[in-house]
Amino acid sequence: MNPAARFDVLGLGNAIVDVIAETPDARIEALALAKGTMTLIDEARMHGLYEQMGPAVESSGGSCANTMAGLAGLGARAAYIGKVQNDQLGEVFRHDIRAVGVAFDSAPLQAGPPTARCLIWVTPDAQRTMTTYLGACVELGPADVDETTVQAAAITYLEGYLWDRPEAKAACLKAAEIAHASGRRVALSLSDPFCVDRWRDEFVTLIDRHVDIVIANQAEIISLYQADSFDQAAAEAARHCQLAALTRGAEGSLIVTGAERHAIAAAPITRVLDTTGAGDLYASGLLYGLSHGLPLPAAGRLASLAAAEVLGRYGARIEHSLAPLVAAAA
Amino acid sequence: MNPAARFDVLGLGNAIVDVIAETPDARIEALALAKGTMTLIDEARMHGLYEQMGPAVESSGGSCANTMAGLAGLGARAAYIGKVQNDQLGEVFRHDIRAVGVAFDSAPLQAGPPTARCLIWVTPDAQRTMTTYLGACVELGPADVDETTVQAAAITYLEGYLWDRPEAKAACLKAAEIAHASGRRVALSLSDPFCVDRWRDEFVTLIDRHVDIVIANQAEIISLYQADSFDQAAAEAARHCQLAALTRGAEGSLIVTGAERHAIAAAPITRVLDTTGAGDLYASGLLYGLSHGLPLPAAGRLASLAAAEVLGRYGARIEHSLAPLVAAAA
Repeated sequence: MNPAARFDVLGLGNAIVDVIAETPDARIEALALAKGTMTLIDEARMHGLYEQMGPAVESSGGSCANTMAGLAGLGARAAYIGKVQNDQLGEVFRHDIRAVGVAFDSAPLQAGPPTARCLIWVTPDAQRTMTTYLGACVELGPADVDETTVQAAAITYLEGYLWDRPEAKAACLKAAEIAHASGRRVALSLSDPFCVDRWRDEFVTLIDRHVDIVIANQAEIISLYQADSFDQAAAEAARHCQLAALTRGAEGSLIVTGAERHAIAAAPITRVLDTTGAGDLYASGLLYGLSHGLPLPAAGRLASLAAAEVLGRYGARIEHSLAPLVAAAA
Repeated sequence: MNPAARFDVLGLGNAIVDVIAETPDARIEALALAKGTMTLIDEARMHGLYEQMGPAVESSGGSCANTMAGLAGLGARAAYIGKVQNDQLGEVFRHDIRAVGVAFDSAPLQAGPPTARCLIWVTPDAQRTMTTYLGACVELGPADVDETTVQAAAITYLEGYLWDRPEAKAACLKAAEIAHASGRRVALSLSDPFCVDRWRDEFVTLIDRHVDIVIANQAEIISLYQADSFDQAAAEAARHCQLAALTRGAEGSLIVTGAERHAIAAAPITRVLDTTGAGDLYASGLLYGLSHGLPLPAAGRLASLAAAEVLGRYGARIEHSLAPLVAAAA
């Protein structure tokens, strides 16, 4: 009925190359960027903003892809579905995710929009402001969801950002249906408070019908339930989600189910350089724990440790193995 | 006769995007790479090696371009001549060098080989091993050398690596002749001991006839003069070069002219992560000093400080201003 999983986690997300630059706050204001959040931009705006950007470094990104790379670093078996072009940045994305050991076989576009990129503006307070040109990602659709891969994954993880495109949304729903028909679990990241704002009702329905595990930060879960406080939002999450992991930056996180409630401390950090990827790596640790049957507090500790690992560096990926964290969290 | 210079330094070099990955020593050995040096590779070998490489980060590079970026960071007026394709990596290169304030107007190729990339393998001892696919760089030639730009630069700086291509060599000689006809100075980096080995006689002749300032590390200057020791090589340099700045890693550097000899200490460093770019930034500090009329010991100190700045990070460029170093070196 439910054979042993070949993958611990399969992720569906926007396949993006990050373009990361240090930026003074004054420039964020001058460019009227929404600090700390993600804004979708078209190609013309992307080129215009890039001209205003300081010298940058390129690094594979994409929220869900970062999570899968983190899972592989922890020693989990991860797979990824996402869309790049057959161009130089697409080659970079494909190389990096495969080089860490994530299975990635989505067919690249042979023409049309280029590989997506996210201009990430890192201010001296270590916050990151993201402006994303989706490019080839807009072509992700149900045809990219391979049934046998979904059936083979213990957890299928969906990136909330995918809701911004109808075809990608259809791909997510297809994957969720296959996963549940195969006795697997489905996880969802809410991705961004503005994204939640755009798709609140659909997310609530989706969580009711298709999602076993919700991962969100404080702003996202408050937005989802239009709550007045984090506590109220967490109570709603406990009522509506089978399991919700809610992050609060330096205040740690809260894991709630209908019956349990675990407050998880943030891992100690000496120096925060760039918060890019912290939420993504939190998800890596959590999904590792849930797919490996760890008790919830241990899964939460691993999530905190993985998040801390990425805060002291620029970018959202970690080159070295994260396997020692698994023992540290136990 | 010799109007005020519009640029402090104009650089000619191979325009390259670096692809940087941490690498265990065992992989360097397994791939039979020449540790600590630069090897030219063709496109097929580049793709083959890239598949063997771990997850990487992309950053604009190119020895001379790094030096020009460092000069701009120090507050100097720098210009650059180099060849990229009109592709995504070419856009990255153009963006980054312009974003730091370097004038860069070389026409990109519209077809043909893609923008050059250098796979940089950084081992745990912070050494970098470079494998370079020259791509579009092979199209750099005399037509790219704009006479008025050379005339407008107090110093024209040539990258020794350019000697590997006849057309690029011709471009260098054209630039050197224009510079001297305009009463300007010419500087040369020896780039790499293997590069010196390939072009020893031509470099000796070039230095005799066309070069005022030679920048080299210990291995390069020993190779140039086929000397038995650094001291012997330095004595040859003092005899044949108008001015030579010779670097020795942690042992600092030596600046010699026919009449002067200044030993310069290395700047203190807390943690060396990656030596990529240290020589390039040394050249930035030195050329800043020489183009701004600093006494040789102060120019050397600035060179050491600029080199130290890049050793504690991955990659060969520094995003923040280096202007405070100028005061520190005085």
